[in-house]
Amino acid sequence: MEKLVGNLLYGQSGGPTSVINASAYGVITEALKNKDIIPDVYVMQHGIQGALNEEFYHMNKQDKEQIDLLPHTPGSAFGTVRYKMPDFREDETDYIRLLYIFRKYNIRYFLFNGGNDSMDTCFKISDYMKHVGYDIRVIGVPKTIDNDLPHTDHTPGFGSAAKYVACTIQEVAYDMIAYPKGKVTIVEIMGRHAGWLTAAASLATLSGHGPDLIYLPEVPFSIEKFKNDVRRVYGENRQCLVAVSEGLKDENGILIGSSSGLRDAFGHFQLGGVSSKLSNILNSEMRISSRTIELGTTQRSASHLQSLTDVNEAIEVGRRAVKYALKGEHGIMVTIERSETDEYKVTYGKHPLKDIANIERIIPKDMINEDGNGVTKKFLEYALPLIEGHNSPKFIHGMQRFAHFEKN
Amino acid sequence: MEKLVGNLLYGQSGGPTSVINASAYGVITEALKNKDIIPDVYVMQHGIQGALNEEFYHMNKQDKEQIDLLPHTPGSAFGTVRYKMPDFREDETDYIRLLYIFRKYNIRYFLFNGGNDSMDTCFKISDYMKHVGYDIRVIGVPKTIDNDLPHTDHTPGFGSAAKYVACTIQEVAYDMIAYPKGKVTIVEIMGRHAGWLTAAASLATLSGHGPDLIYLPEVPFSIEKFKNDVRRVYGENRQCLVAVSEGLKDENGILIGSSSGLRDAFGHFQLGGVSSKLSNILNSEMRISSRTIELGTTQRSASHLQSLTDVNEAIEVGRRAVKYALKGEHGIMVTIERSETDEYKVTYGKHPLKDIANIERIIPKDMINEDGNGVTKKFLEYALPLIEGHNSPKFIHGMQRFAHFEKN
Repeated sequence: MEKLVGNLLYGQSGGPTSVINASAYGVITEALKNKDIIPDVYVMQHGIQGALNEEFYHMNKQDKEQIDLLPHTPGSAFGTVRYKMPDFREDETDYIRLLYIFRKYNIRYFLFNGGNDSMDTCFKISDYMKHVGYDIRVIGVPKTIDNDLPHTDHTPGFGSAAKYVACTIQEVAYDMIAYPKGKVTIVEIMGRHAGWLTAAASLATLSGHGPDLIYLPEVPFSIEKFKNDVRRVYGENRQCLVAVSEGLKDENGILIGSSSGLRDAFGHFQLGGVSSKLSNILNSEMRISSRTIELGTTQRSASHLQSLTDVNEAIEVGRRAVKYALKGEHGIMVTIERSETDEYKVTYGKHPLKDIANIERIIPKDMINEDGNGVTKKFLEYALPLIEGHNSPKFIHGMQRFAHFEKN
Repeated sequence: MEKLVGNLLYGQSGGPTSVINASAYGVITEALKNKDIIPDVYVMQHGIQGALNEEFYHMNKQDKEQIDLLPHTPGSAFGTVRYKMPDFREDETDYIRLLYIFRKYNIRYFLFNGGNDSMDTCFKISDYMKHVGYDIRVIGVPKTIDNDLPHTDHTPGFGSAAKYVACTIQEVAYDMIAYPKGKVTIVEIMGRHAGWLTAAASLATLSGHGPDLIYLPEVPFSIEKFKNDVRRVYGENRQCLVAVSEGLKDENGILIGSSSGLRDAFGHFQLGGVSSKLSNILNSEMRISSRTIELGTTQRSASHLQSLTDVNEAIEVGRRAVKYALKGEHGIMVTIERSETDEYKVTYGKHPLKDIANIERIIPKDMINEDGNGVTKKFLEYALPLIEGHNSPKFIHGMQRFAHFEKN
């Protein structure tokens, strides 16, 4: 195969995870190693918006120490954006601009790091570049705390968010039992359509301190059923710890917790408020004292509690994306495959972007208990290896050190 | 001085901190070392309620491995309670019961671990036992994430909560800049009358990623001033990170965020909701998009992010309490005194409980900036040493290990 000599452009997109910068580290360090084929490595500022506005970080000129801090840095070190690319057959403007930028910077490798919506963007770009015959290798680098990308065993970002959720739930549960009984605590966890992260709360149960009830968006939510469940657990224990997904929907698909009616750039409703709603029901209708904890954005940004397994895989997924691109792959996303061995082991693969864009993988039925208010052993066995190990944070004077880059 | 031979009873009271069990570790291990004077070491279950109900953990019979896990265990490993002891001159019932229990178990050392309200309980018991001439040494062991006990430089529990708040704010701030601008984030932090913990958010600024505005209960809160402050910062940066204390009050002392009107056993209003209220004002009156993060009970239970300085001091405070008791002290609380050296160093002292009970130490004026929306260098210099070091959590299979004891 002929070598495609040209520059690489990498970008981050969608909600940050605590390890998306670990994937950036994998991409950047691997690309910089291949200077004969990839002379220059650029990163877009704020994802595709930076590509359209020609706002790049030139990674060849950055401080190595800062690059080395990436696996400990939360957020999106280069900025992210939620921006929906139109269908190029309907509106070509953005694509013409991108092609102009790609030509100007001789971009021949385009690596895009994100979740479902970002893989849609990535696919559209690969599709357009094929359409106009511009020789480029477009590769998707998966990330999402939601773990809802198809054709991969799991997604970088999920393990660390799951570790944060499980450890926090464990602490909340232990804090709860310190008090005399008589309280329900409802913890609200991120997840729009897929309940993977909420289900991860169950891992705390393995330590002896976990939730009594777990409600996932995969199971139509009934307030009557919820009240009965709480009544039963509370009747037995005089206390109850509940984990709920922010994306809970009733049997008609109506969100339980959507209060604002606002939508984002992709048309998704803004979530939040399901725990308050359920807490109010317990307080007013059942006279049970309850309180809520909304974990919020800390779930995706807790760099101080990363899963080492997740960090290492996130780095490797980034490296593989570069290797696949150099091998001539185009229009694929890197995937993680779990070996069928007793000990947890993964290999890396690839899958066409067109099968991934906009498809959400929800929790399969056999990982949810029959009663629809918890998980099965199969889920625990699936999720536990993903939170193993602790990527010890880099503290200096009590605070963490995060990477900083200058545009140049 | 004559040796007082008899048993020791220790208890935990009030809201947990992530290091109250480190103090328990200090008390228990030090007491167990002195078997000739203290044959048996008991711990009350759920604080004073356990003492009244004769529900004790007999520590001489516990597994050493479990005791060694205490410094890594959040919550209150032996249970806590909020129970207000009456004035014994008005109602002696509880005191007569306690005296009966003390005699039955030959309790001659009573060590009580808590904050303001608990030091009130501790003082009342010491006072009563003097009144009836029962020979016992009553010692207060300080703890509170609120850092509001007087006559001590700071309080065990504050440093770890401050570290959690500062690190989380740092992560939230870094997450915020990942997005294109146009958002205000309001983080709500615990603290009823004293803003120490909210002020700790400022430590994140030292890392380059901190809050733009900080509102403390020490400064009467004006919604108009808040709107002007946000307008200014948002006008300059198109984004703004705000840290608010849940205990904010207006110039008439009315809580900004008290929605429920519920009071606890000590007559304190239940807090919460100030960030939502302020966010609604920004959204509706100023048309600025904002979101809220309520840190909640995770602030006091985050055993995975303890300050090593705080853990070590919490252990030492427990040890000193036993040493003071053995030396014949009675009716005092152990204090921490900071040396006037460049390098951070502390010594330990004592102060009469009667001067501590029910007195809350708020942030002094010279630690709050002139504009009333931030802190001064003096606060940063005060607080930074307290979050130094990381007490690496004990993980096993991705989850933390916490102590467990059997009543016996």
